[in-house]
Amino acid sequence: MNKINCLKEKCPSRNIITNVSDKWSILLITALLRGIFRFGELKRKVEGISPKMATQTLRKLERFGLVKKTIYPEKTLKVEYQLTPLGNELGTIIQQLTTWTETNTDALLNAESKFNQG
Amino acid sequence: MNKINCLKEKCPSRNIITNVSDKWSILLITALLRGIFRFGELKRKVEGISPKMATQTLRKLERFGLVKKTIYPEKTLKVEYQLTPLGNELGTIIQQLTTWTETNTDALLNAESKFNQG
Repeated sequence: MNKINCLKEKCPSRNIITNVSDKWSILLITALLRGIFRFGELKRKVEGISPKMATQTLRKLERFGLVKKTIYPEKTLKVEYQLTPLGNELGTIIQQLTTWTETNTDALLNAESKFNQG
Repeated sequence: MNKINCLKEKCPSRNIITNVSDKWSILLITALLRGIFRFGELKRKVEGISPKMATQTLRKLERFGLVKKTIYPEKTLKVEYQLTPLGNELGTIIQQLTTWTETNTDALLNAESKFNQG
């Protein structure tokens, strides 16, 4: 068996890294690190996400076992989303990524502005 | 001033996280963690990347101060790419992301196959 390596085009990990590190997955996982939320709450937390993209991305994360969706059969249908233990593991790494990015946003924007000035 | 928060649509960090965490940035940074490389070497390491996408992504990473491009004025033009100290910082986090993904590829594929079976 070949070693798992996402630099290899046909390695199954390539498809996984593409699916778990897209913009909306990162932002939804970041929001879910803070608790258990209903769909509308998540949509408000991840500003700018469309209902369609939120639905698709949450379903994808659920499919890979990273998010758990719980449906409560109440009068008004209640649906809640939370990270699974696997999703939490990934979440702690994604949190490092977002924290690093937030901390270094100024440095990166300064580099960009210097670069554009030639 | 508002706190930097990539969940906010208009926060400058939102644009940054989108730019540094796309598939090809992650894979190129992963390759560059292993050393200094010429364009052709990088393209071979990151299997499946098109010349156009490699050029665009390297230029973007250079613009944000994450990659340094060095041009050696030799007989045949020699161009080398390497991570900057800032790029290396991001790289160590991305390495955690790719390592976690590679380690958990089986778990994620198993979850997917269970999900698809309903």
